[in-house]
Amino acid sequence: MTQRLTRARITAVDTRDIRFPTSRRLDGSDAMHPDPDYSAAYVILRTDAPDGLEGHGFCFTIGRGNEVAVAAIDALRPHLTGAELGAAPADLGAVYRALAGDSQLRWLGPDKGVTHMAVGAVMNALWDLYAKRAGKPLWKLLADLTPEQLVALVDFRYLTDALTPEEALRILRRAEPGKAEREARLRAEGYPAYAASPGWLGYSDARLASAARRAVAEGFTQIKLKVGADLEEDLRRCRIAREAVGPDIRIALDANQRWEPGEAVAWVQALAGFDPYWIEEPTSPDEILGLAAIRRAVAPVKVAAGEHTANRVVFKQLLLAGALDILQLDACRVGGVSEHLAILLLAARFGVPVCPHAGGVGLCELVRHLAMFDYVAVSGTREDRTVEYVDHLHEHFTDPAVIARGRYTAPSVPGFSSTLRPESLRAYAYPHGAVWLAERAQGVA
Amino acid sequence: MTQRLTRARITAVDTRDIRFPTSRRLDGSDAMHPDPDYSAAYVILRTDAPDGLEGHGFCFTIGRGNEVAVAAIDALRPHLTGAELGAAPADLGAVYRALAGDSQLRWLGPDKGVTHMAVGAVMNALWDLYAKRAGKPLWKLLADLTPEQLVALVDFRYLTDALTPEEALRILRRAEPGKAEREARLRAEGYPAYAASPGWLGYSDARLASAARRAVAEGFTQIKLKVGADLEEDLRRCRIAREAVGPDIRIALDANQRWEPGEAVAWVQALAGFDPYWIEEPTSPDEILGLAAIRRAVAPVKVAAGEHTANRVVFKQLLLAGALDILQLDACRVGGVSEHLAILLLAARFGVPVCPHAGGVGLCELVRHLAMFDYVAVSGTREDRTVEYVDHLHEHFTDPAVIARGRYTAPSVPGFSSTLRPESLRAYAYPHGAVWLAERAQGVA
Repeated sequence: MTQRLTRARITAVDTRDIRFPTSRRLDGSDAMHPDPDYSAAYVILRTDAPDGLEGHGFCFTIGRGNEVAVAAIDALRPHLTGAELGAAPADLGAVYRALAGDSQLRWLGPDKGVTHMAVGAVMNALWDLYAKRAGKPLWKLLADLTPEQLVALVDFRYLTDALTPEEALRILRRAEPGKAEREARLRAEGYPAYAASPGWLGYSDARLASAARRAVAEGFTQIKLKVGADLEEDLRRCRIAREAVGPDIRIALDANQRWEPGEAVAWVQALAGFDPYWIEEPTSPDEILGLAAIRRAVAPVKVAAGEHTANRVVFKQLLLAGALDILQLDACRVGGVSEHLAILLLAARFGVPVCPHAGGVGLCELVRHLAMFDYVAVSGTREDRTVEYVDHLHEHFTDPAVIARGRYTAPSVPGFSSTLRPESLRAYAYPHGAVWLAERAQGVA
Repeated sequence: MTQRLTRARITAVDTRDIRFPTSRRLDGSDAMHPDPDYSAAYVILRTDAPDGLEGHGFCFTIGRGNEVAVAAIDALRPHLTGAELGAAPADLGAVYRALAGDSQLRWLGPDKGVTHMAVGAVMNALWDLYAKRAGKPLWKLLADLTPEQLVALVDFRYLTDALTPEEALRILRRAEPGKAEREARLRAEGYPAYAASPGWLGYSDARLASAARRAVAEGFTQIKLKVGADLEEDLRRCRIAREAVGPDIRIALDANQRWEPGEAVAWVQALAGFDPYWIEEPTSPDEILGLAAIRRAVAPVKVAAGEHTANRVVFKQLLLAGALDILQLDACRVGGVSEHLAILLLAARFGVPVCPHAGGVGLCELVRHLAMFDYVAVSGTREDRTVEYVDHLHEHFTDPAVIARGRYTAPSVPGFSSTLRPESLRAYAYPHGAVWLAERAQGVA
């Protein structure tokens, strides 16, 4: 189905440094990131189209350096200001290649770090704009594209030894039958979520137990615990969590890159009695071969990783090396929707389930679209798939993530759900928004 | 040998955006970077020590985005301003871990992209400062450290399955005998260089031939050609170069990431008749497994890579996967001297020669120190080792690289040779230095 939009030219690229002082409460604390201030290097794209719609996107960061991500988005301005937007979403494939392929900026990556995250923020903002203009939530906009249009969005450079355009087309065509039925089921039933909030390292034992029980009462069938700082602590916390949730709830563990490969194996084996479902980020995200070795050693505990994986080429390495049981796509780490699509296709090609990384600020809002699109149009299944859910900061978004009975409700508002409320953009602007002025007045920032 | 310095506290972190309009002349053009403006995101560290010495360091970039790298250096200020510097260079290991491990900034990498390059710039500036204060060129400062002191500088996190502190110590102790003799030979004979200037893609055939002949006349025994944009062109240019230099001069080829792995194999095989010595960056720097496959297929042509390798963990992957014949360390891509040392030790552990990447602006000045230190104190050999040399922009440095009979002369000036002349810092400041004002007056920038 072609979706023609009236012409539009980008007239403004408005960037903001938005930070939430989450480190005050130890929300989000883990073995490597003890004090995150969840932040967004935020971009608003405006056009001269009479509809007045804006595209919103952001890099998710955890505080310091958010200004560097803003600078990286600003560096993309020459590609954006004055650019004529194509009439169809499929034209965004070429925009992605122009941004990620900028012959000078690519030296700073290529395809990794802040500059690549900035490409992702801008591409996500463009997709938000296209979806708003088309009057559809992003997942539906993508699901309504033809296999050929979707394939045109993907940059196959460095992928063709594992995934050719023809193979991508075959995957997408295989998912065509049943699309309408899956879409209906999605709207009726939602998409499985798991609860990551109970397990922050900074929480007390009592808070862990009550949060774990509450998650189960709310309908979640999987929770997650941060581990990796201290084995005795982890043994105690795993016991508390397992006792709180009973034997039938999956408990995922997340080490946030804390271990050497050999250390990871020993640590996971020490916790095996609590029947962990997966071990997430057991070591460096760059440890292709190390993750593969860990996976071989800790089975049947699954290895999950991907939130810090820089790009589709590294994901391809992980898949070719047999390093992943679970691929944890992040909406704001890679180069935006075109690259998400490439990664979903790679995962489908290797038969690895995608369970997106979320939490932070805005990640839950974004990744539900990607998982739902994957279900409707790529993998065609929700089997063994679940999207991370963390219950904070949603109130700042105009189209917040909604959970019912442990499942993400399918978004119905047009766009990518990436739009922060204007009052939040004002209050949390760093360093001069009202919230930060108040923090400093209290002498804590 | 301990080297005690008087105490010093960092009083100022002065950053600059320095760019050279090299794209005007097609110097440095290759298949992926047709129009680089060689640039430095530059940092000057000042202290309260009475010696008044400054530490200079920089990220090398190729133009747009240099301001992002400056912002990334600025983001490290909280770790630097007011910091007391330890009395011995070995204390810089802890500084490296603090900078690279910043719990919020690491989200932007970890250990990759602009934020990691910024850590490298600052660490190199600190090493420049220590070497100036010790009155030694950096290579000599490092070579005079004990194996124990050197090992204390290395962050072994994520390395221990390939290189333990004990193995590093063994490598360094193995190189102890003969150090004085190698140092004397280095001062007398210099360190082998190869000439990369002849082979820029933007150069005409006549300019290629004359530059290749001149390189041989100047004493170089290896030249390098950029390839990968067009096979017919490459065949013609390889023929011209081979005819110009004769059969005994090594010709290296550099594809600057242009190819898919399979394409790389076919292309290199098509050029095999011209007896290329190595193929450099045949594909994406993230292609651990692809590079290994290319290496197996194109032997005896060697595979060289590393200038875009983000960190020591990725180098470890490349070495474990058997992806490299030649490791091309870059002085400004990774996290500075501590990480260079880790990478030199890894290369020694795997018996892979290090042939540093240079060119750009200032890379020749820096990497000669690393190669010379490697020869004196790590690998203990110059066999099959050669440092890239490009003959431009040296005049801007206070201690420029000097080549004699195709070899780098050993630096004798204290420091890391990373100091740009004050007049160059003023004239090439972007966007308001005199050179850029003149460029804009001519309507070209």
